[in-house]
Amino acid sequence: MKTRQVDIAIIGAGTAGLNASREAHRAGKSWVIIDPGPYGTTCARVGCMPSKLLIAAAERAHTIAGAAEFGIQVNDWKVDGPAVLKRVRSERDRFAGFVKETVESFDPENLIRARARFSGPNTLIVDAKDDTIEVKAKAIVIATGSSPWTPPQLEGVADDVLTSDEIFEMEDLPASMAVFGTGIIGVEIGQAFAQLGVAIEFFNPFEDIGRFSDPKVVAETHRSFDEQLTMHLKSDVSAVEKVDGGFRIEWTDRDGEAHTRTFEAILNATGRRANVSDLDLEKTGIPLNEHGLPISSPRTLQCGDAPIFIAGDVSGHRPLLHEASDEGRIAGANALRFPDVQAYIRKTTLEIAFTSPQMAIVGNRWADLDHDEVVSGEVSFANQGRSRVMGVNEGLVRLYATKQDCRLVGAEMFGPRMEHMAHLLAWAIQQNTTVPELIAMPVYHPVFEEGLRTGLRDLAKSLRIAGHCQPQDRGEGPGV
Amino acid sequence: MKTRQVDIAIIGAGTAGLNASREAHRAGKSWVIIDPGPYGTTCARVGCMPSKLLIAAAERAHTIAGAAEFGIQVNDWKVDGPAVLKRVRSERDRFAGFVKETVESFDPENLIRARARFSGPNTLIVDAKDDTIEVKAKAIVIATGSSPWTPPQLEGVADDVLTSDEIFEMEDLPASMAVFGTGIIGVEIGQAFAQLGVAIEFFNPFEDIGRFSDPKVVAETHRSFDEQLTMHLKSDVSAVEKVDGGFRIEWTDRDGEAHTRTFEAILNATGRRANVSDLDLEKTGIPLNEHGLPISSPRTLQCGDAPIFIAGDVSGHRPLLHEASDEGRIAGANALRFPDVQAYIRKTTLEIAFTSPQMAIVGNRWADLDHDEVVSGEVSFANQGRSRVMGVNEGLVRLYATKQDCRLVGAEMFGPRMEHMAHLLAWAIQQNTTVPELIAMPVYHPVFEEGLRTGLRDLAKSLRIAGHCQPQDRGEGPGV
Repeated sequence: MKTRQVDIAIIGAGTAGLNASREAHRAGKSWVIIDPGPYGTTCARVGCMPSKLLIAAAERAHTIAGAAEFGIQVNDWKVDGPAVLKRVRSERDRFAGFVKETVESFDPENLIRARARFSGPNTLIVDAKDDTIEVKAKAIVIATGSSPWTPPQLEGVADDVLTSDEIFEMEDLPASMAVFGTGIIGVEIGQAFAQLGVAIEFFNPFEDIGRFSDPKVVAETHRSFDEQLTMHLKSDVSAVEKVDGGFRIEWTDRDGEAHTRTFEAILNATGRRANVSDLDLEKTGIPLNEHGLPISSPRTLQCGDAPIFIAGDVSGHRPLLHEASDEGRIAGANALRFPDVQAYIRKTTLEIAFTSPQMAIVGNRWADLDHDEVVSGEVSFANQGRSRVMGVNEGLVRLYATKQDCRLVGAEMFGPRMEHMAHLLAWAIQQNTTVPELIAMPVYHPVFEEGLRTGLRDLAKSLRIAGHCQPQDRGEGPGV
Repeated sequence: MKTRQVDIAIIGAGTAGLNASREAHRAGKSWVIIDPGPYGTTCARVGCMPSKLLIAAAERAHTIAGAAEFGIQVNDWKVDGPAVLKRVRSERDRFAGFVKETVESFDPENLIRARARFSGPNTLIVDAKDDTIEVKAKAIVIATGSSPWTPPQLEGVADDVLTSDEIFEMEDLPASMAVFGTGIIGVEIGQAFAQLGVAIEFFNPFEDIGRFSDPKVVAETHRSFDEQLTMHLKSDVSAVEKVDGGFRIEWTDRDGEAHTRTFEAILNATGRRANVSDLDLEKTGIPLNEHGLPISSPRTLQCGDAPIFIAGDVSGHRPLLHEASDEGRIAGANALRFPDVQAYIRKTTLEIAFTSPQMAIVGNRWADLDHDEVVSGEVSFANQGRSRVMGVNEGLVRLYATKQDCRLVGAEMFGPRMEHMAHLLAWAIQQNTTVPELIAMPVYHPVFEEGLRTGLRDLAKSLRIAGHCQPQDRGEGPGV
């Protein structure tokens, strides 16, 4: 067994791990990334990029399907499934290729293509191709990512069921598909398939769609998706069986009625789990939660007081690409600073689902608020001017502000172009902008952002009734 | 001749005039709006709303034309011109109807359906249907808007040439159309018609497209529109003649070569002029510029020291709907305060053209900057990730910041979804946000805003070389 000594060892060559390595590189410290591959990051290979490519095609199809309203007659069109998926893969490979090239161009001493497991808080055992290596490090960053989880009902057919790992590899679109799960991934991919003409049905033992918590936004989400999609919420799937031509699913619906239907394919989108099972974490002495996952502070990413840091999807804090980048940098920086770790301020929360309409959460969710301290405002996009012009007028945005200092602190947003307005609000929250200040911001005409301003004015009205804003802060003067 | 005495008389029931009247109404003062009609605001009747409705249809057509790249086969489709224009008008009438209803529901004492002319700084003569009325007012707001201007070459055919006043009234799309002018209105409508299958050619004796001034952005704009559209820039139109089937146009191109071509229709989009000719402004004693237009401060909107205020397109400050609203409120408020007028802070400039790609200007244009005091940064959207996913990857954004305090002060933006990113930057400029602060803002993945961040990082690089930003302000730490 060879032994290597480095300043920082990083387990995982994904977004978080690569960002951690950059911190070490910039500081001129010795480092190694240990990862058996495939390289290319979850996001680029099987996550945000291919799903957005699929959605781009689905949006085109949806646009064509709705063109008559605008005076465009489309008499003969079809979705060429193999061509749709070919573009998804070819563009996906291009994006993932950049990351892959980065990793593969590493100096050999910075990359070990193998799995790592802990033998102590400062040591990893790596079963490399030709030898077992003991890596001793001053600090170690866990950045092993996450993997799709298989629910009990799908365990018997797990090898044949698709996850986001496999779905973009299909040669053609199936005629029908059952989607297990109505979280972000399930709804994004399932809705896109539906818009591309696949007969999609969703199954979820619970009622949640995406991550909204505000009862009014939840209700509007259900209204919209119920109209567009077949969702068996609060359904109880009792059997899933492989049969000729696909899978036979038996379920009981929310009213207790039993159903059986056969689908050509199944997408398992019931969630992802942190990749920790091969790490022998018990050898590290770091605190683990009831699921065996390391407990870490989101601001330091340190595990207990060990020289071990955790970043990206595996940390369980914010499983999003841009947060994985930040966590990689924070974990890398603190690994370098150990034991003098620093608590970094995290960015304002920003979550976006590229559904139609889009779903976004900014800052605090409704469920996370102290409702004695905040008031809310809202705006419906059902008749919002520009949205109506574009034929995408539906949705509801709910906004939250503190009574004490009239600052915007969160929003749950369902409607068109929310990906953009979510940035507008996230940047405002991060800057501690008050609602009166926001109302005084320039808004063009006719734009989607006018809808947002209507919501902010409604929020200001709530603040006038319940809040402590000064009259001069209310943004009601001429020219504002 | 009857005489009426009011606190405030407002000439014009458009966006500015209506907003001015709301100030008077809120203050409990007596007021009257004088306007012969038609009611409904320039924007809603013949401006931003119908053009955006047309563009919505054009975007659908453009999407269909480009669907094959995404794997969607469209074998048979056509633009149903009458249906396109019918939707434009029907939705337009709905939007304009709201304004019309507002005006027509006014108490009769608040509305005189006639033209007004000055007989002195505090008096207007109104030739109403059944009587001539002298309106005496403590202050008067001019909010008469603007009208399309006819260039000399089109004077002989002016009655048959279309302007934005008439183009949306067409029963069907023409087979071909010459567009005079490559400003915002010309390019928005002309490009939309082209995307809807009309053979469009643009004519402009100058080289400007839209309002960009940064040479690099101008160059990219020309590259893109040259590829998409037929633009005879620096052309000299020598004759326009009505002939069978349309108009015969003779012109000399930039290389001095002569051409003749016949177009079914002509759109005159060479600019708009303030509506002041019927006002007898010389009776007021207010200062006029060389074109006979009132000179006013953009922050008070007062004309000289007279009890006369000017707002909206006629003021010549910022001929945009959202600015007309602000100017109406400022003029109304100052008319009420006269002679104690107040200088209001205007919002950060925000201009958007809904072309493809979109054009936007935020804060200071390049041409308005002191180039000793600022540095620039830029980002191309030619390969920006999300833009590429959506098949809209082209454009260039240039950003400007002050060396002294590292604040963003302006941007010229050409690319996809710029209407949204322009708001992001306008709000940042209005809040005096520094470039390092902007780089630390949350940005999701994969989004168009990542392109903007790349540009901001490039700007930060320029600031590091030339600016005075503190190292800790550079936003380079972990987690930012």
